[in-house]
Amino acid sequence: MRIELLTGAFASLKRSIDSGTETQRDAVKSIIEEVRQKGDAALFAFTEKFDGVSLSDLKVTEAETQAAYQELDPETADIIREAAANIRSYHEKQKRESWMTYKEDGTMLGQKITPLDAAGVYVPGGTAAYPSSVLMNVIPAQAAGVKRIVLVSPPNKEGTLPAGVLVAAKELGVEEIYKAGGAQAIAALAYGTETIRPVDKITGPGNIYVALAKREVFGDVAIDMIAGPSEIVVLADNTAVPGEVAADLLSQAEHDALASSVLVTDSMELAEAVSSEVKKQLETLPRREIASASIEDYGCIYVADSIDEAVEAVNELAPEHLEILTENPMELVGSIRHAGAIFLGRYSSEPVGDYFAGPNHVLPTNGTARFSSPLSVDDFIKKTSIISYSEKAFAQSAEKIAAFARLEGLEAHARAIEERLK
Amino acid sequence: MRIELLTGAFASLKRSIDSGTETQRDAVKSIIEEVRQKGDAALFAFTEKFDGVSLSDLKVTEAETQAAYQELDPETADIIREAAANIRSYHEKQKRESWMTYKEDGTMLGQKITPLDAAGVYVPGGTAAYPSSVLMNVIPAQAAGVKRIVLVSPPNKEGTLPAGVLVAAKELGVEEIYKAGGAQAIAALAYGTETIRPVDKITGPGNIYVALAKREVFGDVAIDMIAGPSEIVVLADNTAVPGEVAADLLSQAEHDALASSVLVTDSMELAEAVSSEVKKQLETLPRREIASASIEDYGCIYVADSIDEAVEAVNELAPEHLEILTENPMELVGSIRHAGAIFLGRYSSEPVGDYFAGPNHVLPTNGTARFSSPLSVDDFIKKTSIISYSEKAFAQSAEKIAAFARLEGLEAHARAIEERLK
Repeated sequence: MRIELLTGAFASLKRSIDSGTETQRDAVKSIIEEVRQKGDAALFAFTEKFDGVSLSDLKVTEAETQAAYQELDPETADIIREAAANIRSYHEKQKRESWMTYKEDGTMLGQKITPLDAAGVYVPGGTAAYPSSVLMNVIPAQAAGVKRIVLVSPPNKEGTLPAGVLVAAKELGVEEIYKAGGAQAIAALAYGTETIRPVDKITGPGNIYVALAKREVFGDVAIDMIAGPSEIVVLADNTAVPGEVAADLLSQAEHDALASSVLVTDSMELAEAVSSEVKKQLETLPRREIASASIEDYGCIYVADSIDEAVEAVNELAPEHLEILTENPMELVGSIRHAGAIFLGRYSSEPVGDYFAGPNHVLPTNGTARFSSPLSVDDFIKKTSIISYSEKAFAQSAEKIAAFARLEGLEAHARAIEERLK
Repeated sequence: MRIELLTGAFASLKRSIDSGTETQRDAVKSIIEEVRQKGDAALFAFTEKFDGVSLSDLKVTEAETQAAYQELDPETADIIREAAANIRSYHEKQKRESWMTYKEDGTMLGQKITPLDAAGVYVPGGTAAYPSSVLMNVIPAQAAGVKRIVLVSPPNKEGTLPAGVLVAAKELGVEEIYKAGGAQAIAALAYGTETIRPVDKITGPGNIYVALAKREVFGDVAIDMIAGPSEIVVLADNTAVPGEVAADLLSQAEHDALASSVLVTDSMELAEAVSSEVKKQLETLPRREIASASIEDYGCIYVADSIDEAVEAVNELAPEHLEILTENPMELVGSIRHAGAIFLGRYSSEPVGDYFAGPNHVLPTNGTARFSSPLSVDDFIKKTSIISYSEKAFAQSAEKIAAFARLEGLEAHARAIEERLK
């Protein structure tokens, strides 16, 4: 039994990543080329063109940061500090050690963990400030041990960055903050300019131009995932509170008209109550236009015959965010094979994780939780295999290794081994 | 002082990934489309066209596997078995556990590790057999706990796969082996056909069509890296044996005319001796045409003033394979920031790691060791954040979280929190 009480179709929830138009892709390529050729001059020109402000310096000064502290009320700075501490505590637990194994014959095999040299973080501009983007991208890099972290963000018409962003960056000790946005900022991070030295990996969300530029420089530098629209799935039984479920669905819907909010439940009573609560709560939302469009196109309530069937529906969707609002939510964690983040119980409303709890809010969207993970310390390290064979171990294996090489038709490989046996 | 004794230029070693020609890219797109539309029928047709054999079944049968055991001599099967055991032992050590932290206020935060549902491995065909590709791609997936592993490889003109490949697969317990190659096999793994169900991640090397197809399906499924030509850097002092260094350089050079072999040393004497040894050993190599071209274009000997300067040169190159042939090789490991795999001392010739020692031979090429890692168990798992807030913890943080949401202009996020305070 599948009953769709909201109008979005369950089957339509898997959406393609926005690859942009031909015009957008060409624009991005030419912006990147221009930055590679002209460096800072290109950044200044594009900033004037796209952000409507003529800058004389790219780098944010200490005076600007101090002004941001004056602007932001102290309570907000405290909240940012507390959120940062929670996020740091969680990510520190993801750290891994290099290891080595020692065999009696003298062979040593291991894996060395090394942080990236430099990471670049893109923080979107626009109408709102995103200090949470600063925290969620910078802290994993710091926990990994990345020494050089570069933050870029498009300036507003006054040529400054939002106070919340600057305070968050300062609290984390980020030294290099540049006023540059769009594809031009991504190009600068990837290839460098006179002012901005290149980095090894670029993370952080952005508009279609930023996403296309990241895809374009991918390979020359590493990037995080190309994020699709945000999604939430709430898995609930009749113990869930309809008003809370509805509010959580709407918190995703307000992000983007393409965002998707789904309730999967075994209770028709809950389904009907949530459906009417969604409509009621929508009415007074400031971003109700966006949220209505999202609910209409990508909102869905699926009533399953059992919790087991509901769990299978969740695994089919592989959601970015999953809330479990059942009598014993922890019991179901083992059966969830695909989800970016799982929020358990009514006090783990999804926004708790967006800003504050500690886990990362950069999560796999669009069903990619089947094979992708939240942004983590692992994204800012690389591994190196260590192989040290002893003379004794070599002598025991040399002929076998040479035979294997010849089986694959690679004579010089066999001879490199045999050269040691002379 | 930089002295280039072989003719390749040090500066020319960073090469772009082969993006194929427009014609190749279009061909790949249309092959993928054809497989998506026609399924198995398209696979049969492309196999006839590209591999020159008309198949009636895609799946390798038990009888074919038994015939492979008859064909392969038992000693070779033993070597494959021993290599598999070594590789399994190394990769088992990469396994990670889910974890959970518990706070006194009742909050629980954790990270759940889940294997991918299904992985597909491409094993190249052509003139040689690549059982090592089977071992190096399948074993990490198995160690991660992936239940369904699918192997694809192009059949020869007789419609079979090389005995070494079938024996390696059987030894690992791979049940699904299909005779399909090229872009069509990648399309089948990504989107499925009547016979081949889709997978979540595709790994394994292949020709330009395979590489372009992997890039094309990337996003709908995960892929491993797009590998460039193979590289070795040997970091050596005057304690190294010139004939061994030369043989190791040539073992890379024989792979591919684009492969790169570099010696970095502080000893002019070693440099000159290796240079003449390379020329001597080249003469009798069966694949000397390929190796000569590689050495000519991408072979290089760099003589540094000191070992410190030599180490910096290595970090600049970020090689796929690094051999350290100095008096105390282990001492230098800490100073190497970028390398796919490090081979220490004269008994750790690079081919030791290609087949036998245990670490993976799928390694980051073309300078991407700056930000990429060897294929590992991590490539076959994904992480899920777990967030469980208690009522007490929620009450203490609710107002702060709501304030943070409003700072970012997201009212519905704030209301989702406040709905719980009613």
